[in-house]
Amino acid sequence: MEKIRPARGFASDNNAGVHPEIIEAITRANQGHVVAYGDDPYTRSAMKKFEEHFGPDIGVFFTFNGTGANVLSLQSLTRPFHSVLCSDYAHIYVDECGAPEKHTGCKLIPLPHESGKITIDAVRHAYHGIGDQHHSQPRVISITQCTEMGTVYQPDEIQGLANFAHEHDMFLHVDGARIANAAVSLGLTLRQATRDLGVDILSFGGTKNGIMGGEAVVFFHRQQAENFLYLRKQSMQLASKMRFIAVQFEALLTNDLWKRSAEHANRMARLLEKALQHIPQVKIVWKVEANGVFAQIPRQAIEKIKKKCFFYTWVEEESIVRWMCSFDTTEEDVHLFTGLIAEAVKA
Amino acid sequence: MEKIRPARGFASDNNAGVHPEIIEAITRANQGHVVAYGDDPYTRSAMKKFEEHFGPDIGVFFTFNGTGANVLSLQSLTRPFHSVLCSDYAHIYVDECGAPEKHTGCKLIPLPHESGKITIDAVRHAYHGIGDQHHSQPRVISITQCTEMGTVYQPDEIQGLANFAHEHDMFLHVDGARIANAAVSLGLTLRQATRDLGVDILSFGGTKNGIMGGEAVVFFHRQQAENFLYLRKQSMQLASKMRFIAVQFEALLTNDLWKRSAEHANRMARLLEKALQHIPQVKIVWKVEANGVFAQIPRQAIEKIKKKCFFYTWVEEESIVRWMCSFDTTEEDVHLFTGLIAEAVKA
Amino acid sequence: MEKIRPARGFASDNNAGVHPEIIEAITRANQGHVVAYGDDPYTRSAMKKFEEHFGPDIGVFFTFNGTGANVLSLQSLTRPFHSVLCSDYAHIYVDECGAPEKHTGCKLIPLPHESGKITIDAVRHAYHGIGDQHHSQPRVISITQCTEMGTVYQPDEIQGLANFAHEHDMFLHVDGARIANAAVSLGLTLRQATRDLGVDILSFGGTKNGIMGGEAVVFFHRQQAENFLYLRKQSMQLASKMRFIAVQFEALLTNDLWKRSAEHANRMARLLEKALQHIPQVKIVWKVEANGVFAQIPRQAIEKIKKKCFFYTWVEEESIVRWMCSFDTTEEDVHLFTGLIAEAVKA
Amino acid sequence: MEKIRPARGFASDNNAGVHPEIIEAITRANQGHVVAYGDDPYTRSAMKKFEEHFGPDIGVFFTFNGTGANVLSLQSLTRPFHSVLCSDYAHIYVDECGAPEKHTGCKLIPLPHESGKITIDAVRHAYHGIGDQHHSQPRVISITQCTEMGTVYQPDEIQGLANFAHEHDMFLHVDGARIANAAVSLGLTLRQATRDLGVDILSFGGTKNGIMGGEAVVFFHRQQAENFLYLRKQSMQLASKMRFIAVQFEALLTNDLWKRSAEHANRMARLLEKALQHIPQVKIVWKVEANGVFAQIPRQAIEKIKKKCFFYTWVEEESIVRWMCSFDTTEEDVHLFTGLIAEAVKA
Repeated sequence: MEKIRPARGFASDNNAGVHPEIIEAITRANQGHVVAYGDDPYTRSAMKKFEEHFGPDIGVFFTFNGTGANVLSLQSLTRPFHSVLCSDYAHIYVDECGAPEKHTGCKLIPLPHESGKITIDAVRHAYHGIGDQHHSQPRVISITQCTEMGTVYQPDEIQGLANFAHEHDMFLHVDGARIANAAVSLGLTLRQATRDLGVDILSFGGTKNGIMGGEAVVFFHRQQAENFLYLRKQSMQLASKMRFIAVQFEALLTNDLWKRSAEHANRMARLLEKALQHIPQVKIVWKVEANGVFAQIPRQAIEKIKKKCFFYTWVEEESIVRWMCSFDTTEEDVHLFTGLIAEAVKA
Repeated sequence: MEKIRPARGFASDNNAGVHPEIIEAITRANQGHVVAYGDDPYTRSAMKKFEEHFGPDIGVFFTFNGTGANVLSLQSLTRPFHSVLCSDYAHIYVDECGAPEKHTGCKLIPLPHESGKITIDAVRHAYHGIGDQHHSQPRVISITQCTEMGTVYQPDEIQGLANFAHEHDMFLHVDGARIANAAVSLGLTLRQATRDLGVDILSFGGTKNGIMGGEAVVFFHRQQAENFLYLRKQSMQLASKMRFIAVQFEALLTNDLWKRSAEHANRMARLLEKALQHIPQVKIVWKVEANGVFAQIPRQAIEKIKKKCFFYTWVEEESIVRWMCSFDTTEEDVHLFTGLIAEAVKA
Repeated sequence: MEKIRPARGFASDNNAGVHPEIIEAITRANQGHVVAYGDDPYTRSAMKKFEEHFGPDIGVFFTFNGTGANVLSLQSLTRPFHSVLCSDYAHIYVDECGAPEKHTGCKLIPLPHESGKITIDAVRHAYHGIGDQHHSQPRVISITQCTEMGTVYQPDEIQGLANFAHEHDMFLHVDGARIANAAVSLGLTLRQATRDLGVDILSFGGTKNGIMGGEAVVFFHRQQAENFLYLRKQSMQLASKMRFIAVQFEALLTNDLWKRSAEHANRMARLLEKALQHIPQVKIVWKVEANGVFAQIPRQAIEKIKKKCFFYTWVEEESIVRWMCSFDTTEEDVHLFTGLIAEAVKA
Repeated sequence: MEKIRPARGFASDNNAGVHPEIIEAITRANQGHVVAYGDDPYTRSAMKKFEEHFGPDIGVFFTFNGTGANVLSLQSLTRPFHSVLCSDYAHIYVDECGAPEKHTGCKLIPLPHESGKITIDAVRHAYHGIGDQHHSQPRVISITQCTEMGTVYQPDEIQGLANFAHEHDMFLHVDGARIANAAVSLGLTLRQATRDLGVDILSFGGTKNGIMGGEAVVFFHRQQAENFLYLRKQSMQLASKMRFIAVQFEALLTNDLWKRSAEHANRMARLLEKALQHIPQVKIVWKVEANGVFAQIPRQAIEKIKKKCFFYTWVEEESIVRWMCSFDTTEEDVHLFTGLIAEAVKA
């Protein structure tokens, strides 16, 4: 009985474990003493890897998690009377228990989204009250790539938002918890998918792409990073044994591990999508462009499937659920899971 | 030349790597998928280990680092108009870039210390302005155990502070970054060294005792933990792949690893102290009660030794330096380091 | 030319000056020395006046302004991981430059409104994620009475929201910047219009009803005010020469000044409404229930009228403007202003 | 019996009422409607008065109270990882219930004082940890003029602190709650006493010099005020009927009212000092340089005098009390009060 369940679930790419190459890198770094808090050769070497991928004159800083990377990115660019424009489904807006507001003091302005993406029109509509002391002043546009709906902003969409931002004295932040999946989906390098499109600052995700824990804030204009060391420490995001975060990123950016893992996860999502097309009760609701599949399924089937293999309901009212693939999802997992679904929706 | 240097330094116990049993535990936990954010069997199992050591009816929560554990401990017990009484050398006062003030909104009141310890008299002196709306209201006494001067509060000292706290509607918090070293030094169990003395809340340190990264907040009155999950998430201290922090603590609390490591580090410090007693230019300034040795040495020797083996000057004006031992310090490391010192102070 | 302009404008009820009875009260209180910060007979006497109007067992505290009263009301009821549900046009949401977020740390959740009012349905829709550590926890429903659209919540609407709040472990806050106008409009006493409907805490407005400056936070459950003195001082809202705020409220609550002023302002708004009904290009968009008239007028007329008599555009996209009456508006002001409008919309 | 008490007390200069010229100015401004929030002719006119006194190219902003002016001054110059150096008796350190820490996020570093003044040596000692991410970075030196001990910084002392600040990339802030009394004491104009000595930003006090309520933040480098309007609004310090604060300052700066009032208060303090010299049990502890007298008196006399005429104990342990004179103190008040003291200390 246990056997026919998929060995790995589809609840979230952060339910997965750690890629063996990452574990190996950690083990390899466990030699003797090095100075704590980032002033060590492992950290310096990892930063060089970032420069190989993103080009020179960047600022790279490790944090513990995505919330830390997002909040610190925003705090670097704002003062408390600013506002941040983002989707009303943005992770920073709905899933961080108010961390951005608490730490930056800023207001987050929720914008309507189309398939997870915000548009220039929505941004323009929210861009008002400029110079009026009663209104929080818009300072950052923040997008999630891949989006919370599993879709991927196209290069021209990002460029458009970046242009709008820069023409209006704002910045473009990318919450890149799944930036690897997006870059792979777009057929771009990490640099082409971010810096070259006008992104100002990137939360570079690792955890959802197979590392144990850690994210990076990448500044594409180094001078904006001027105070980052203090902000990070004060925000409780400075690791003492930094080398063990650094080597994970070093490994992720070596021999295309980031790409191999993301490509695999994306491919598994397409496989899942394809398999689901044979189940008429399952309706894919957003384009499968990365490693997630979002489907509307009969309400009564949800709990049945969850019992065997847990996942999250995404839009309660519309009976839409989310299924995520990860670096370690196997074809067999997909087939077994599809089987579970097919059975549950029948009844 | 490189060879005669100690292979492991004396700068800090967080410059050390990770104990092999911890690495092993991490590797072992790297199996399949589990729910993220702490709702997993590894985390539940680790919490049970805490109950074995500290007794029932506690609340245990993992954080990323010591600053996170300290700030969240304080935030759990305070509102922004409260104040926290601590030593003017306390880590929370001088080494966290203002994180406690920024996050809790509270004022930290620095008290004079004696060999790193604050006294009831100093606390009583600072306890005033009660009920006066113009004054931050004292709410928490926070002590560091072992202290920042390498000394260890004795049981009656802690009990005295706890009693004063409770008689005045305050709480006693222990920053236990090195609580293992203290318990070992006192010949007490973890529970005897904390909960049984009246401590209300403990930042339980792991990183400086051989784990890769992570600390725990331990509430000895569970009802005070009521809102902790939200506070932790909002404070950016919630790990997604929580199991990899949990299993480190599980291992640390299994087969007395916490104790073996701390005992060893303490023993190495005593060995270092003993060896230094033969060098007349070196004056030990505070009792060596745990894993640190603090010495006054000729000013011109400091840079010479640092060049070969880095460490921190602790009190600049008085030429006092700090040398820390860790779980992996060897007797040979001590002898080589003592040799370096002896040579440097001669000139 | 100047003469045909109204002597008093329609931009805002806070553009008006101070009612003569208020000036008189201030002058009368200017005798000798009294203890500062509220421990004086004038303040105690004013508090008694509040008890006459709202009943016993309340907590009353003066602040400098409405933002202060609102923010402190919310802060008294929340911790930073909570959220506050309010209209997306609420003053606290759009007109306080992010003060509530910055000071409370809470997230404000904007709800759609109907003629300025939020509904139980909208609240219910936003009430989710309860017990989920990733989500800010709803704690307060905040409504503005009169609303930002000049309408007035009916007693059963307020009771409904209060009931929903209390059934879900939440509180109902009323931003009563114009509570006097609302009570008068409903034909209720101040108590009937708030406390008796289940309101938990009230920002009691004075400035827009003819006082010089000052608002009051009124707690209907005194125990919730336990820490208010500290919160107020820490929030920079404690007046030293408190008597001069207190006597303004004393006067406002004496001989029905609050009611006389509000009734007059409301009557002037109805007069304005009636006069505007003869101008076909002017369309009243929301019910005139208090002292404001909101109208859609030809876009090109707006600047023309503003030049002669300034006011605010309320909904830019729809060419909706706001005209407010105050305690000192005269019938002649209304007629002159209507004349200006009639002329401007013709062209 | 009541008659022999002084009609005006010596508890604080903010226990006094309002100077008649201020009341008159308020009454005069109570004409018709003007735009709220500071965009009115009264406010512009008051700002010009400031330029007459302090010279051109300044930024002037009104706040409600001294805490508001101080906190906003500091917030304008800092980010949360900065620290502020001040006396351990500074009003911002001990009397604002932690407002500066809560709002700026900064750490306040208490320095030892000499007769209420901090020295360059004390500042230099506290200026360390520069560039170290673990330490709050010193950014502002804040002094109180007159000091909390009634003394007055001499011009060269202020210049010395300003120079030290500027040489170390810091700013000098003056909490000028009693700056008028200081300027008068030094025989300097307001500009000579502040801007010309290198002060960067001034909390200009009015309340303790006879106005009803209000303070001003004066920037001597206008570009630093760039974001002040937003900071003020977000900090709940923006008055809607601003004209009634503005005209108070206009009056204070007209016909030397600021000077006349301060001179009188200072003279009364000297008179009190002189009278007290005939009472051997009363020991004046700090130089009487402005409007306060600080004396050590027999402990048992304190409550006796307080019962008849309330005042504050300043240093509990040393039985030191504070007696303040104000613009309305009369010679008779001084004589009656001296009589009370003489009688009380005898027993």
